[in-house]
Amino acid sequence: MPEFFNVQPVQAALDRLLSYWKPQLRTETADPRQALGRVLAAEVYSPLDLPTFPRSTVDGYAVRAADTFGASQSLPAYLICTGIIPMGAAAEMALRSGQAIEIHTGGMLPPGADAVVMVEKTQPYSDHEIEVLAPVAPGENVIQVGEDVDRGEIILPAGHTLRPQDIGGLLAVGLLEIELVTPPRVGILSCGDELVTPEENPASGQIRDINAHILASMIEEAGGEPVLLGIARDTLDDYLAHAQAGFHQVDMLVMTAGSSVSTRDLTRQVIETLGKPGVLQHGLAVKPGKPTILAVCENKPVIGLPGNPVSAMLVARQILIPLIHHAVGKTLKPIATIRAILTRNLASTTGREDTIPVKLTAKERGWLAEPVFGKSNLIYTLIRADGLVSVPLNSNGILAGTEVEVFLL
Amino acid sequence: MPEFFNVQPVQAALDRLLSYWKPQLRTETADPRQALGRVLAAEVYSPLDLPTFPRSTVDGYAVRAADTFGASQSLPAYLICTGIIPMGAAAEMALRSGQAIEIHTGGMLPPGADAVVMVEKTQPYSDHEIEVLAPVAPGENVIQVGEDVDRGEIILPAGHTLRPQDIGGLLAVGLLEIELVTPPRVGILSCGDELVTPEENPASGQIRDINAHILASMIEEAGGEPVLLGIARDTLDDYLAHAQAGFHQVDMLVMTAGSSVSTRDLTRQVIETLGKPGVLQHGLAVKPGKPTILAVCENKPVIGLPGNPVSAMLVARQILIPLIHHAVGKTLKPIATIRAILTRNLASTTGREDTIPVKLTAKERGWLAEPVFGKSNLIYTLIRADGLVSVPLNSNGILAGTEVEVFLL
Repeated sequence: MPEFFNVQPVQAALDRLLSYWKPQLRTETADPRQALGRVLAAEVYSPLDLPTFPRSTVDGYAVRAADTFGASQSLPAYLICTGIIPMGAAAEMALRSGQAIEIHTGGMLPPGADAVVMVEKTQPYSDHEIEVLAPVAPGENVIQVGEDVDRGEIILPAGHTLRPQDIGGLLAVGLLEIELVTPPRVGILSCGDELVTPEENPASGQIRDINAHILASMIEEAGGEPVLLGIARDTLDDYLAHAQAGFHQVDMLVMTAGSSVSTRDLTRQVIETLGKPGVLQHGLAVKPGKPTILAVCENKPVIGLPGNPVSAMLVARQILIPLIHHAVGKTLKPIATIRAILTRNLASTTGREDTIPVKLTAKERGWLAEPVFGKSNLIYTLIRADGLVSVPLNSNGILAGTEVEVFLL
Repeated sequence: MPEFFNVQPVQAALDRLLSYWKPQLRTETADPRQALGRVLAAEVYSPLDLPTFPRSTVDGYAVRAADTFGASQSLPAYLICTGIIPMGAAAEMALRSGQAIEIHTGGMLPPGADAVVMVEKTQPYSDHEIEVLAPVAPGENVIQVGEDVDRGEIILPAGHTLRPQDIGGLLAVGLLEIELVTPPRVGILSCGDELVTPEENPASGQIRDINAHILASMIEEAGGEPVLLGIARDTLDDYLAHAQAGFHQVDMLVMTAGSSVSTRDLTRQVIETLGKPGVLQHGLAVKPGKPTILAVCENKPVIGLPGNPVSAMLVARQILIPLIHHAVGKTLKPIATIRAILTRNLASTTGREDTIPVKLTAKERGWLAEPVFGKSNLIYTLIRADGLVSVPLNSNGILAGTEVEVFLL
């Protein structure tokens, strides 16, 4: 059993897990209009040149640029206006030297024209003639065929998460079916004799299981499909029964259990029955969240999270969410943050990464980050907070007044 | 008609529109587990104290703190262990002076106990007796009733957007039904003789209408319900017919039309038929997006966007999205950004706010922001970009090498 009992930094533990896991992508096709926020399973090529015809970018006159060379206010070029190009129709009337054809923004450049003079740079001279008051260069005020995207060009890479403009770009080239990654199923199993469902009225000594629903929302946001596997009791038999019944339905399993020594041992025992290689890491160099378990069983990640909801949520951000991103092959984007001035000293211990919830308040210019202190079991510390500040592994704290990066929560 | 023809900065134009519009909230109830990302219509009060019973935060022994005062390694306190508190059950056995009761993390403190000694600070002395090796203060290692949240406390404000932890917090206090803002219906009408639907095969001179679908995705992301009103032709009759048929179904209307002078005039004429006060602003001090129209008709915002997709999308970010947030009463959060080093000079004009798409690339430490240049009609400039850099109103540009804030796109 390739296990380490010593605590490890998050990245080292994740890297170790990834070395034992090869995610199997499932894919499905969909209309881009139903695919906002979904991840592309394969790169997408443009089936055509965009635009498919040369287009004017201004209102004005399609011309041969050479006919305007040298034109000025005092010495205009005179061109015969032979018609107007209707929007949405092919420009069939060819343009000859010495001629101009009226055109609107987005209109198709007629054969023979190579530029457009803006209407503001012209004035009517007679019924059928205009004065051009400034020269245009060949190609000026024109979008050429394929200038937006070329036929055969890769327009979006595999792993890309679809944004509104991507949906527009796919439709623009006529792609009405694309291949998406099917959200991986992530099983969620809660364990504890004290837990009841949110529907039940807890008796004295009982609490509602909220971890399952916090994790389900996080999994959904990250692009996974949460699968609720219920509440197991603190006996090996019941825990095993729930875990084994759920395991074959899912691509990944996350379990939360009380952090007492006895239930922690239960989680380990249960994981070891699910397959090889089993538990890879027991203990993370983080606060909160130290007693986290990372495992891979039969090529499925299995994560044992602490039972208290704050630890469970913060470790899920650091471990579970990156695993879901990896499972869907998502290209990772830089993470946007808020810069804020810390209002209080944050003490920490070298060799451990601390995560501290903060509340943001606007100051004259910028933001203040006020730590929300509270025992790590109190879910409302995360509800009162707007974001998180991280104290890195090799730091023993951050002084009040320091500018910190706040990750929105 | 209270109109200004001169261009205005975005904020001034928005403020003016808001002064003519009083959004009418519609509300609905839902289970918090189906409400991720939704906006609360009313503040939420806790119906109970959380926790409802005093809980241990550690594994150890419930005690009277006074019994441990003065205890040390060399002079332990001796306590009689009278039993164990089962998880999930009421602690009924009262604790008397000189006694200890074994307790797990999350267990209910028995009557008579006021603190918990961590198991690590004890050792067994006999079958029924333990040694306590360090003192605990009253309340130590205990979460008191209501310490997480008090009965009657406002736990979430109206206008709050629900995050995973909020859903957990609502369930924790037994709230299975909450009042949400119903997404406002935002009508989208495209106008242009050159437009066909994405399903159609455009003939020469025609293009697929992508604006409607880009805007629909943006509206959905912002918490609105997009209502596609189809494509109108460039005639006053057809444009009027579509706009008037759609207007009564929606809470807000956005129209895109060619930016040619003629179609811009059409949009204005159509808006004026929809009700009072009508067009408030024609022209924004932004690039791209100058020919934008802002109006309020019968207490519904009506926005006329330029027809080219880049301008339409960027102005929608600046105008339409804030209006949707206002319509749902959403509390605005600080916007997270990426700090990056600009790779090229960005020229601009004072008195105008420019928005420039940039591509982010990782450098040794941090990010580089490379402007994605291209004519403002090219949708793929926004697809190749990761974010946007804003050149403020009173600046004439930003020099290469400057650290800029990048808004993710």
